[in-house]
Amino acid sequence: MSKKITIAIDAMGGDLGVNITIPGAALALKEHSDIHFLIFGDEARIRPILSRYPDLRDSSEVIHTDKFISNTEKPSVALRKGRGSSMRLAINSVSEGRADCVVSAGNTGALMAMAKMVLKCLPDVRRPAIASVMPTKDGRVVMLDLGANLSCDSEVLIQFALLGAVYSKVVSGKKKPTVGLLNVGTEDVKGHEELRSAAAVLERVNFAGHYHGFVEGSDIPMGKTDVVVTDGFTGNIALKMAEGVAKLSGMYIKDAFKSSPLAMIGGLLAAPALKKMKAKVDPRMYNGGMFLGLDGVCVKSHGGTDEVGFANAVMVAYDLIDNKFNDQVAAELENLMSQESFFTSDMIEED
Amino acid sequence: MSKKITIAIDAMGGDLGVNITIPGAALALKEHSDIHFLIFGDEARIRPILSRYPDLRDSSEVIHTDKFISNTEKPSVALRKGRGSSMRLAINSVSEGRADCVVSAGNTGALMAMAKMVLKCLPDVRRPAIASVMPTKDGRVVMLDLGANLSCDSEVLIQFALLGAVYSKVVSGKKKPTVGLLNVGTEDVKGHEELRSAAAVLERVNFAGHYHGFVEGSDIPMGKTDVVVTDGFTGNIALKMAEGVAKLSGMYIKDAFKSSPLAMIGGLLAAPALKKMKAKVDPRMYNGGMFLGLDGVCVKSHGGTDEVGFANAVMVAYDLIDNKFNDQVAAELENLMSQESFFTSDMIEED
Repeated sequence: MSKKITIAIDAMGGDLGVNITIPGAALALKEHSDIHFLIFGDEARIRPILSRYPDLRDSSEVIHTDKFISNTEKPSVALRKGRGSSMRLAINSVSEGRADCVVSAGNTGALMAMAKMVLKCLPDVRRPAIASVMPTKDGRVVMLDLGANLSCDSEVLIQFALLGAVYSKVVSGKKKPTVGLLNVGTEDVKGHEELRSAAAVLERVNFAGHYHGFVEGSDIPMGKTDVVVTDGFTGNIALKMAEGVAKLSGMYIKDAFKSSPLAMIGGLLAAPALKKMKAKVDPRMYNGGMFLGLDGVCVKSHGGTDEVGFANAVMVAYDLIDNKFNDQVAAELENLMSQESFFTSDMIEED
Repeated sequence: MSKKITIAIDAMGGDLGVNITIPGAALALKEHSDIHFLIFGDEARIRPILSRYPDLRDSSEVIHTDKFISNTEKPSVALRKGRGSSMRLAINSVSEGRADCVVSAGNTGALMAMAKMVLKCLPDVRRPAIASVMPTKDGRVVMLDLGANLSCDSEVLIQFALLGAVYSKVVSGKKKPTVGLLNVGTEDVKGHEELRSAAAVLERVNFAGHYHGFVEGSDIPMGKTDVVVTDGFTGNIALKMAEGVAKLSGMYIKDAFKSSPLAMIGGLLAAPALKKMKAKVDPRMYNGGMFLGLDGVCVKSHGGTDEVGFANAVMVAYDLIDNKFNDQVAAELENLMSQESFFTSDMIEED
């Protein structure tokens, strides 16, 4: 067996807390037997569930706290009052070198605020981003930022292009993922000044990805590029819009199959095929919002997910550590900054 | 028969030009026999098609021009060089009082630039918006702005809330449509400063709609509010993302039905029900991007639509004229501005 990877789990996070985090960790352990878990949370609630998973129990350590961050807590309050919480202690374990990474299904805003404060950004990274993976026509797309930064100047967008490209390399195995900047049209003259400045730089530098150009909203699900970069306001809204439309499509189909006896029989016959299709877009498989750019790996699992989704988030964290994601980012960033062309007058104006 | 409504048609606009605009106008005439059409474009191409629709021929006048604006023309170039084009002449006919409104399936950017220059905004309207109607879980939602303004200050957003509410009243018949401001979360503290300022004003004024609060991307297809207001950058991307995801869902379903003989039989049995569902979300029924806030009604039909979609755009224009949309907007705006509370220090700071 190779060296152990230690993953800190905020056991209390998410809508179902220990009921999904513990079984989820057990599932991930089945895939990767070299994980050691630090489980932070209420021992009295963790132990009964943990006892059902002897392998996990033997590969983990429980660190008790009866404090936790609720889903409705404001980030600023969580920062001030959440010092002893399971979320905060789990993050601390990464900054203290006791864990390689942290996974939480808790309050996104609180997690980002705490992770930013405790772990800090990687050297020369201006802002962390939240990235996620979505299904497309023929594969998957990495999209960022999904809400960590409401607005982004061109330098931040360029850094996000780099972060997204390295992340895409890890999750897709592609050598040179294509990167698009999200805009209202594909012509050079379109969009905000910061987008056009970022595009001008990305066109001439060498970095982990291949810069494709501007992409539009409809290009994301069609998989035009491997990575799509945008500000956190637009990214958050576009992602949630996509989730809403996908949900609505599912509702329409269900209604259609219920609308007549013939349709019901048709639905029964097609059920296995439709189930397979549904598995392809199963949100649990795309679960794991990555916080990119932090000096420590932090993965956010959907709050409403089940153990399969949480296990997937744990495995994303595993892959990032296993692939030395942050070392790759640091090397790529140094490479980018060594290219004189990167710092131009329009960049300086931005700041 | 009531008084005639005169509608100017840019016959050359759209991917298929006269092949959809003339049959589309004929279809609309079947619904509303009191329309008189002014048809602008190449007479040699219009006449042969027009001759197939005797009713339309008798209810229309052809104004010849051999100039037209291509889909790839930049708005600035269209403004400078498009003086004699079918699009421009059709818009002119509205400003000259010869037509009540104009409908074009041509280049959106050029149409907006020309309409803005020729028709101007309604008194006290700061910016025009592009609005569209989308299917939701149980009905339809009006969304604006979809690309006319990349960024919007709070006063512009407030005006868009009013424009959207009046538009929703006309298309849905609701007395007091609910209005949401698109944001990354529903709490008061979320989002850009201009959003929070707009929300603070909308909460205390009386206007055509009922202000609901902030809405998120996923709330749009779920139909949480009748109207969703956002800036043109976010709106454009969210709309196109929705179109892309809807298209992708359709592809997945088709693939599922092709994946096994049993699924194919199931698909055949369910076909009528699925067709009915598809009709419910038929983009042609939601065709007609409205330019709201201009001193003259201008409707943009999708460039790639067919005659049914174009006819629908014509009928949207008809409804707006028939309901005296712009008079309603002017009255509502006066009412809004008469409320002292509307002008507050935070509004003045914005400008």
